[in-house]
Amino acid sequence: MNLPDSGVSWPRLRARLDALAEIGDTGDGGCARLALTDADREGRDLVVTWMRDLGMRVDIDEVGNIVGTWPAASDEPPVLVGSHIDTVATGGRYDGNFGVLAGLEVVEAIVTAGIETERPVAVGVFTDEEGSRFAPDMLGSLVYVGGLPLEEALSVVGVDGAVLGDELQRIGYAGPAPCPARPPHAFVELHIEQGPVLDAEGIEIGAVTGVQGISWTEFTFTGQSNHAGTTPMTMRRDAGHAAAALAVAAREIADGAGPPMVATVGRVTLVPNLVNVVARKSVITVDLRHTEDAVLAAAEGELHARALAIAEAEGVTITSRSLARFEPVAFDPAVIDLVERAAVARGRSTKRMPSGAGHDAQMLARVCPSGMVFVPSRDGISHNPAEHTDDAQLAAGAEVLFDVVLALAGAKRATAGQEEMGQ
Amino acid sequence: MNLPDSGVSWPRLRARLDALAEIGDTGDGGCARLALTDADREGRDLVVTWMRDLGMRVDIDEVGNIVGTWPAASDEPPVLVGSHIDTVATGGRYDGNFGVLAGLEVVEAIVTAGIETERPVAVGVFTDEEGSRFAPDMLGSLVYVGGLPLEEALSVVGVDGAVLGDELQRIGYAGPAPCPARPPHAFVELHIEQGPVLDAEGIEIGAVTGVQGISWTEFTFTGQSNHAGTTPMTMRRDAGHAAAALAVAAREIADGAGPPMVATVGRVTLVPNLVNVVARKSVITVDLRHTEDAVLAAAEGELHARALAIAEAEGVTITSRSLARFEPVAFDPAVIDLVERAAVARGRSTKRMPSGAGHDAQMLARVCPSGMVFVPSRDGISHNPAEHTDDAQLAAGAEVLFDVVLALAGAKRATAGQEEMGQ
Repeated sequence: MNLPDSGVSWPRLRARLDALAEIGDTGDGGCARLALTDADREGRDLVVTWMRDLGMRVDIDEVGNIVGTWPAASDEPPVLVGSHIDTVATGGRYDGNFGVLAGLEVVEAIVTAGIETERPVAVGVFTDEEGSRFAPDMLGSLVYVGGLPLEEALSVVGVDGAVLGDELQRIGYAGPAPCPARPPHAFVELHIEQGPVLDAEGIEIGAVTGVQGISWTEFTFTGQSNHAGTTPMTMRRDAGHAAAALAVAAREIADGAGPPMVATVGRVTLVPNLVNVVARKSVITVDLRHTEDAVLAAAEGELHARALAIAEAEGVTITSRSLARFEPVAFDPAVIDLVERAAVARGRSTKRMPSGAGHDAQMLARVCPSGMVFVPSRDGISHNPAEHTDDAQLAAGAEVLFDVVLALAGAKRATAGQEEMGQ
Repeated sequence: MNLPDSGVSWPRLRARLDALAEIGDTGDGGCARLALTDADREGRDLVVTWMRDLGMRVDIDEVGNIVGTWPAASDEPPVLVGSHIDTVATGGRYDGNFGVLAGLEVVEAIVTAGIETERPVAVGVFTDEEGSRFAPDMLGSLVYVGGLPLEEALSVVGVDGAVLGDELQRIGYAGPAPCPARPPHAFVELHIEQGPVLDAEGIEIGAVTGVQGISWTEFTFTGQSNHAGTTPMTMRRDAGHAAAALAVAAREIADGAGPPMVATVGRVTLVPNLVNVVARKSVITVDLRHTEDAVLAAAEGELHARALAIAEAEGVTITSRSLARFEPVAFDPAVIDLVERAAVARGRSTKRMPSGAGHDAQMLARVCPSGMVFVPSRDGISHNPAEHTDDAQLAAGAEVLFDVVLALAGAKRATAGQEEMGQ
């Protein structure tokens, strides 16, 4: 591609990021705007004000998703960008917020340059992406695409006992726009990686190929409590040892499969958990992720086979239950290509990569061509006040988003990438 | 040996076991007589009454140890038998109690048969063997042999805030006999195994060769918390994985060394202990035991080397601290021989074996020839109301104790085993 100056203004985008971060500022560089709290309302009000200042039409739907559309009068399926502005309790300034505010900057750049597009451009702010207050996460985008009935979503009870629908009413964001919504023309989400890959490899732009499938399994081993001194090794039925052996096996399975397979044993509980007592019970969780469902399923099968063999060798009983199972999501090949080519055209280093975390884009992928642009996260840290991306990296991501949006929306003034528009 | 009838009366011993078990009866087959509580006083009073009824001289020492001596007038170093009558909070009926009451039965059999011995026979009841209320365990016998200063023992504060010396005064067992005491001629402790070996192998009498050395080490690994989905396996510093790998290594070390080495990882803590977060910290304990100090020390060295290698491979830091370290205790070869030969002469199956648990005999071994006789524990269960040994097994143990005591004490009427007396 041979691209003109984007017109994306980094100082303008930086100013909006800083202004939004003041709402719920935790004083340590972080932000706390749990979904549908007063802080979330303040954040929403600010973003809506900015949308209206840009001349966009603002629609609030029945689950509180905000969609700002430009040109305001257009009723065609838009090229939708965006993300979320709710945070975890100890969140950073960029997770979600960056995708929304970069979307506003793209619109402002388009408006300022007088660019006309064949399709409208819209910026979405999805309700309760984090799921920290109301489960499940990605709730707003899930309802938006028809994956969860509206009434069910409105009756979700939060960790603080509040009902989602009541809180929407309370903060004034129970809107009239129908949800599920009419599918947009395409969806692109710009986001920090929330992982260490781009930062470690010194790469500026990630062209996200999809979202990993997730499999969470909890295994419970039951053996026999015994005196650590008087029970010979051959007579033990050690539930703790079975758990340790399975954790090691999970690592071996991941190493054997190679990237992008990841396996994590993050939670282990022994009973009675005493220095000198062989554990009679252990409970451990295994989190497996892969971008291909067949590979993920094979790993699950191997994990269960290893767990059974370990239990038999140790003379303990085993039960297991699935805590979560999400199939992998593949983004649209044309959108992935567009992201990659825009990065290359702007002279940015880029790589194709899966997302290890969940994002609203995986919900939108159910109803329209979708994709994501990643920028680096320093040390892979996220959901933490220390979350950080350099200004230049953020600006580069916003420019790539601008180029991809113009290509998808069909800019009428000559821009490279226009030939990729047809979805 | 060609042994006469022992004169040991099982019904009499059974009746005393049942009567003592009524004090602190937990209603589920178990007993609760924590050291120096009212229940412990009631138990002591009953045992002292029985001693006096047998014509024994009863001495209470400064830390509350009770020693009943027969003949009452003798001041020679006695052949001492006995154990303790305090229990854990949810104890059984045999742990400790059996050794004390079988000792009384041996004395009653000697008295009843009119046997004279060259040396006096004494029955000891040691204070606070369990250590459940006042740490350390085996406190009374430790002070008895001079291993812990009396004043230090008397000032120990219990888990309930009570001071040991105050409680001794309160229950009337702060005696005048000096402690540390003059060493006895020999010491023999009859005890349930508290492990599964004799029960599983169908063997009636264990000739205890010593008490295993104990090494408790706590390892702390510190890595980095990371998102389970976004962090490639090669970029992890997973403290949880290091803990699992070390637990597996501990098992390998025990298996490699062979019996009687045992290794137990009974306690594991991960931080933050969440399904989808790589643990930034783990703390695990390793309990190693062996009867030979050189072998135990070699295993400790191997464990630390494996821990360091695991930490380096995972990119985590490691610290460790010793929580406990007790050298192995070897019992007197002549006493071990006596126990084994008495069992064989009575037609009992027997095996030489180490004790995996701690006992008062390991303290007495510091000052006189000492040994132990084990009888089976059903399923190895102890410190539990389900603790059980069959009547015939208990009776067989008491007979072996009788024979060993007569041999050590130098019975003047013809008994086999007399040639073993010289210690």
